[in-house]
Amino acid sequence: MEKILLKNAEILGVNGDVKLADIAVEGSIIAQVGEISAAWQADRIIDCTDMLAVPGFVNTHTHAAMTLFRSYADDMQLMDWLQNKIWPAENNLVGEDVYWGTLLSIAEMVKSGTTTFADMYFHMPEVAKAVAESGMRAVLARGMAGVAPNAEQALAESEDFFNQYHNSADGRIQVMLGPHAPYTCPPEYLKRVVTLAQRIGAEIHIHLSETIGEVEECQKKYGKSPIALMQELGVLDCGVLAAHCVHVSSDDIVLMKAANVRVAHNPGSNMKLASGIAPVPQMLAAGLCVGLGTDGAASNNNLDMLEEVRLAAMLHKVHTLDPLVIPGKTAVAMATSYGAQALGLGKVTGTIAPGFKADITLFNMHAPHWYPRNDRSSLLAYSANSGDVHTVMVNGKIILDNKRLTTIDEEQVLYEANKRGLRLTK
Amino acid sequence: MEKILLKNAEILGVNGDVKLADIAVEGSIIAQVGEISAAWQADRIIDCTDMLAVPGFVNTHTHAAMTLFRSYADDMQLMDWLQNKIWPAENNLVGEDVYWGTLLSIAEMVKSGTTTFADMYFHMPEVAKAVAESGMRAVLARGMAGVAPNAEQALAESEDFFNQYHNSADGRIQVMLGPHAPYTCPPEYLKRVVTLAQRIGAEIHIHLSETIGEVEECQKKYGKSPIALMQELGVLDCGVLAAHCVHVSSDDIVLMKAANVRVAHNPGSNMKLASGIAPVPQMLAAGLCVGLGTDGAASNNNLDMLEEVRLAAMLHKVHTLDPLVIPGKTAVAMATSYGAQALGLGKVTGTIAPGFKADITLFNMHAPHWYPRNDRSSLLAYSANSGDVHTVMVNGKIILDNKRLTTIDEEQVLYEANKRGLRLTK
Repeated sequence: MEKILLKNAEILGVNGDVKLADIAVEGSIIAQVGEISAAWQADRIIDCTDMLAVPGFVNTHTHAAMTLFRSYADDMQLMDWLQNKIWPAENNLVGEDVYWGTLLSIAEMVKSGTTTFADMYFHMPEVAKAVAESGMRAVLARGMAGVAPNAEQALAESEDFFNQYHNSADGRIQVMLGPHAPYTCPPEYLKRVVTLAQRIGAEIHIHLSETIGEVEECQKKYGKSPIALMQELGVLDCGVLAAHCVHVSSDDIVLMKAANVRVAHNPGSNMKLASGIAPVPQMLAAGLCVGLGTDGAASNNNLDMLEEVRLAAMLHKVHTLDPLVIPGKTAVAMATSYGAQALGLGKVTGTIAPGFKADITLFNMHAPHWYPRNDRSSLLAYSANSGDVHTVMVNGKIILDNKRLTTIDEEQVLYEANKRGLRLTK
Repeated sequence: MEKILLKNAEILGVNGDVKLADIAVEGSIIAQVGEISAAWQADRIIDCTDMLAVPGFVNTHTHAAMTLFRSYADDMQLMDWLQNKIWPAENNLVGEDVYWGTLLSIAEMVKSGTTTFADMYFHMPEVAKAVAESGMRAVLARGMAGVAPNAEQALAESEDFFNQYHNSADGRIQVMLGPHAPYTCPPEYLKRVVTLAQRIGAEIHIHLSETIGEVEECQKKYGKSPIALMQELGVLDCGVLAAHCVHVSSDDIVLMKAANVRVAHNPGSNMKLASGIAPVPQMLAAGLCVGLGTDGAASNNNLDMLEEVRLAAMLHKVHTLDPLVIPGKTAVAMATSYGAQALGLGKVTGTIAPGFKADITLFNMHAPHWYPRNDRSSLLAYSANSGDVHTVMVNGKIILDNKRLTTIDEEQVLYEANKRGLRLTK
């Protein structure tokens, strides 16, 4: 069992406080935080002077392989973009494309400080392979659309995928079910998903109330909001990670709280696609767990969680005209401990403390935008950028070492992803 | 005269197109763009393979030395923040503090790709000294508050500063007059500023309509909006760079257009301070010149223009619920050519073309978030981060060379700025 000592780190705590201490990692676990006795013999010592040690970011919602479509089609109307650009391109995807696209996304996520991500896509064994090989932590869901020709196949694949991969890769891979959204999954189909979820004990990752159009359509068709419909169909009883929740009412929030729905807030995607502004201050005030996500790189256009932190802290201030809402410290918590809770991993990752998995990002603070050192947590939330990420550890293993990926052949990934991305979109 | 060849660069043009070519720099000027003949002998050749050459960013509004107050006081109400934190701290500033704070800001700006900035502060000879030494380009204004005890002194200093520094440092320094805002400068004082401006031929940099409160107060006091008041007082006739313009009406925009007012839009500051969302799509549609600015680092909290590009492109989309407004390419233009025009430097900087000053930023595209290479301009606007800035040239001189500052002793600046910042805010 490898023992790694992170020496003299400035460690970000759950309340935003920062203390100077050492972190002792044994195998996959944070064994001690504080002054480590000389008797504890490390195999490797990393000098963390002038580094901020932050719990690895948790990206609660993405479609990782969609990095292949990055910068292919921007500044478009949503339906024009989906129907004429994204869906035709996705039709040409093969499993190997998803593998390389996912590796590209993991390379980007690791280099920007993310250690866990929640994914919804297809060809999921290829995604799991990329996660297993790279050393990342992930919560994976095979996307299912009840209206699609492959609706039955998607259900069967989801069950197989759960059985084969849940808790795999030394426990780094968890599996959820991924019914895409109420507008692509009719009630009868969602009921079957619920039955499957109950039978195998899986939770659900789903898009809910992303656009005003889908909420209006749901009201017209079913006489209730998407949230209320999900409650009626039993979806909320399964344990739900709900992406977006932009257009949710006060009544919806009450239902969500009752069922302990966890929210993946995606401010960058919501802004770029002009979806709207989620009532995050109200959701947090109601006691909901709200994490942050990037959404896919086709709609963001990157997987940079620090950018989502900043957007979460700034967007709601200007929207409510209240500079006190979502302080920087809260936004950082949303990207770390809240995000971990949102994925059901609140006791596993998202916090630097003994007993948690060693998922840690070191930010190099030796740069002009980190001075003066008044408040390190504020510097992280409002001034840092992902170019400051120096070293990243997942499950006790260093997968980014002084900006160099240790488990991924970056050159090959850039080459393959570029070739495949350009083929798919030409 | 030094001759530098930027070889094999991917060059961002004014319309967002990118072409592969060489850039020949002679002295301070871009001499040629295209295929450079072997007869043109360079003193230095820089291999720009896999680099995006972008016009150096133009930061149209900041208070550079306020980097000293970075992360000192965040997530507060504006007046609480100003009265209880910023103003008391500023009272303790001495000239040397402003010098080191400005150098810190220049170090940060250069490392994030900015080559020109418009500053409004005090102890301006210290600012000019930092600009001259560092090789930056800047448009400087001594801030004047008519309600302050030093109102007379500020006017006299402004005139002296203009006479001594306008067109100094090989033309890299321009000077404007800086009456702070209508709510700190009563009409009689502004009339004296206008008289001075006309006498010496200076333009004016001023904060206008930043908060709803100041607009309401102006309406109550003078029966008109700040913009209309400025027009009446003759301020708009002087040539005006107007910072913020968050709460401007359609009538205001007509007045601004008639006087060719140039706007410094500061989305990050407006979001963090909860000032509101400026009607930028309307201002652009009216034909106004709108550049981007960071505002001071105490309210942003960094000087990262790429972040402002992204915010400008995304904030107005979600605000108007229209994903087509302010495309990425437009936001990049706002940070480059429009910004240069806003400062009266539209024929000097902001464009990579023969005859312009050689103010160029090279972005290293060899990173996961720059793949696939569908649209480089979109990658810059929506995916890049300032950690990608590799090399920066101002006025034909390389001041950042492969991430290393060549004209600034970075270690000394970090040390001095940290020491002084912590002293001022303790």
